[in-house]
Amino acid sequence: MSDQEKELGVLRQQIDSIDKQIHELLNQRASCAQQVAEVKLKYQGASDVVFYRPEREAQVLRRVMERNEGPLPDKDVARLFREVMSVCLALEKPMRVAFLGPAGTFTQQAALKHFGLSAESVPLNSVSDVFREVQSGNAHYGVVPIENSSEGIVNHTLDLFKRYDVTICGEVELPVHQHLLLKQDGDRKEVKRVVAHHQSLAQCRAWLDTHLPDAERVAVSSNGEAARMLVGSDGTIAAIAGDMAAELYELDIAERNIEDQPDNRTRFLIVGNQVVESSGVDKTSILVSSKNKPGALYQLLEPFYRNQISLTRVETRSMNSGCMFYIDFEGHSSDTDVEKVLNELAVVSEELKLLGSYPSAVL
Amino acid sequence: MSDQEKELGVLRQQIDSIDKQIHELLNQRASCAQQVAEVKLKYQGASDVVFYRPEREAQVLRRVMERNEGPLPDKDVARLFREVMSVCLALEKPMRVAFLGPAGTFTQQAALKHFGLSAESVPLNSVSDVFREVQSGNAHYGVVPIENSSEGIVNHTLDLFKRYDVTICGEVELPVHQHLLLKQDGDRKEVKRVVAHHQSLAQCRAWLDTHLPDAERVAVSSNGEAARMLVGSDGTIAAIAGDMAAELYELDIAERNIEDQPDNRTRFLIVGNQVVESSGVDKTSILVSSKNKPGALYQLLEPFYRNQISLTRVETRSMNSGCMFYIDFEGHSSDTDVEKVLNELAVVSEELKLLGSYPSAVL
Repeated sequence: MSDQEKELGVLRQQIDSIDKQIHELLNQRASCAQQVAEVKLKYQGASDVVFYRPEREAQVLRRVMERNEGPLPDKDVARLFREVMSVCLALEKPMRVAFLGPAGTFTQQAALKHFGLSAESVPLNSVSDVFREVQSGNAHYGVVPIENSSEGIVNHTLDLFKRYDVTICGEVELPVHQHLLLKQDGDRKEVKRVVAHHQSLAQCRAWLDTHLPDAERVAVSSNGEAARMLVGSDGTIAAIAGDMAAELYELDIAERNIEDQPDNRTRFLIVGNQVVESSGVDKTSILVSSKNKPGALYQLLEPFYRNQISLTRVETRSMNSGCMFYIDFEGHSSDTDVEKVLNELAVVSEELKLLGSYPSAVL
Repeated sequence: MSDQEKELGVLRQQIDSIDKQIHELLNQRASCAQQVAEVKLKYQGASDVVFYRPEREAQVLRRVMERNEGPLPDKDVARLFREVMSVCLALEKPMRVAFLGPAGTFTQQAALKHFGLSAESVPLNSVSDVFREVQSGNAHYGVVPIENSSEGIVNHTLDLFKRYDVTICGEVELPVHQHLLLKQDGDRKEVKRVVAHHQSLAQCRAWLDTHLPDAERVAVSSNGEAARMLVGSDGTIAAIAGDMAAELYELDIAERNIEDQPDNRTRFLIVGNQVVESSGVDKTSILVSSKNKPGALYQLLEPFYRNQISLTRVETRSMNSGCMFYIDFEGHSSDTDVEKVLNELAVVSEELKLLGSYPSAVL
């Protein structure tokens, strides 16, 4: 046996012995999780027991990242613990998670990222199907897109929060990439126009300035629409869109990841039937409407400024009878200052719906 | 504090303490993996060092499943260890894995399942691009589809093994599902014909007999083609295909998972530039050609029967000059009996190419 083989043999024995210890601890953890389920069932009716606690999971992950000393990177360890919690939870209670299908979409990726591989994920054909399954209790949780870096907020999802009684239990973020698409066998040199949603044109400006400085930039309603325009086109148009659109319309990906900020993210919401307790670092989402009079939005936002609560997103939806606003802000509805703002809002608004407080995305 | 809260508090403290131990062990394991890399680099040139050892990984996973006493299910623990090895390997050497894109396809799922989330996965536009990237060393490994339950073997992939010098380093299996697809807002009651690849028609026979007994069944070249036929159709046709096709052609999924055997699986190969040592439970793939004379296949298969080596797949490809066979069988090329068969084959065949010996899929 060579020196190398000897040294490797020693290290591999160490690894095997570590693996055995990890293995034992994983099963110990799983049996603790089973006991947690038993205790809950002893004191509560089976239908009242909440097995999945997003706030506790977020706390565990944050603690893992805080105490991590390496050599494993913080995010990798946290991801491993997410999977550990996922398999333990599946033992307590198999989770059924509905998502906007089909399988293989980014929404499924988001569901997997949040619930781990041990949850049963069920693809549904529309966001309203997801809301309906969650409201009826057929699915424990649902995952729906809410923000998309190229199309902005997903308005359809917003509108459904008015129609269904589900609460937001969490958020998930995924990185997104934008590509330059050409029709099949197209030549980049012939491109005279680049079409895309205006946000994507803006996000890829530096790349376009360098590589296609003479091409006209044309904003269209969505990147999907931009990709569709290439079908049957004469080869002088390029589109900016993601992998899905390239596949859908059988386009060539002439250049990958042309966005200036490579950390573009898209956001998904976890919906459920449960009020999530504070995890310490939370967000709250509300729908609030007012008569359409001058200064309405200012009146609604002023309490946030006055109480120094950071807004993370404000969306305006025009409606027949006035305006509706979707507002995300930092903090939990059980925090004193948030409670105060919500009470003030209830007075000045026509309608106020608390969609949920939930842990800010950890990973 | 209620009794329930007290009992839960105790269990949660136990879980937190177990988590701390697991966390510490994970980092110890990672640092052992780093030392393995250092030892290899001390004795070998950087370009000669092989960091990823599929046979060792398969052995670790099999051992985990064998010694597992629960309560975690064998497969769940093995999956956790796959991820643990993935993050440790990423520390030794960040892996670049090319796959047949785009992102979100089953091939990417296969790549993730095999290499874990810590590998960098690179979507490419064709199987030959994947082979080229691997042969040139731009990617460490490639993942390509080889068998697809609805279309059988992927002939294109087979043919590329003749053109490129890459070896098979592993296999991955994924479950697949088939759906009944209708054009948008179509009505199942109006369906007079069901189109699909003949294998899919066969795989869904029981469901079709029960739910669409009067519909004519028409075999077409692929399920993708079947789905395409629905575009612009009059609503009397239904297709059988998977999620991807439904999305690609914007069809309604009228019924999910209609296959009679719900454990249909599709198979992918891992290609690389490395000879994988025996893991104990292995498969070997070869390409072998003979002059097109009567009894050619019998002559090629006879040594396997005589040496009691199980064949897992035989595919025939007609070529200008004769016939080529793709043969998968159990065993490793370093096994005495396999070596013997390969020597015999070399004599009776015109050309024999060992594509690789690799661990049988563990999960």
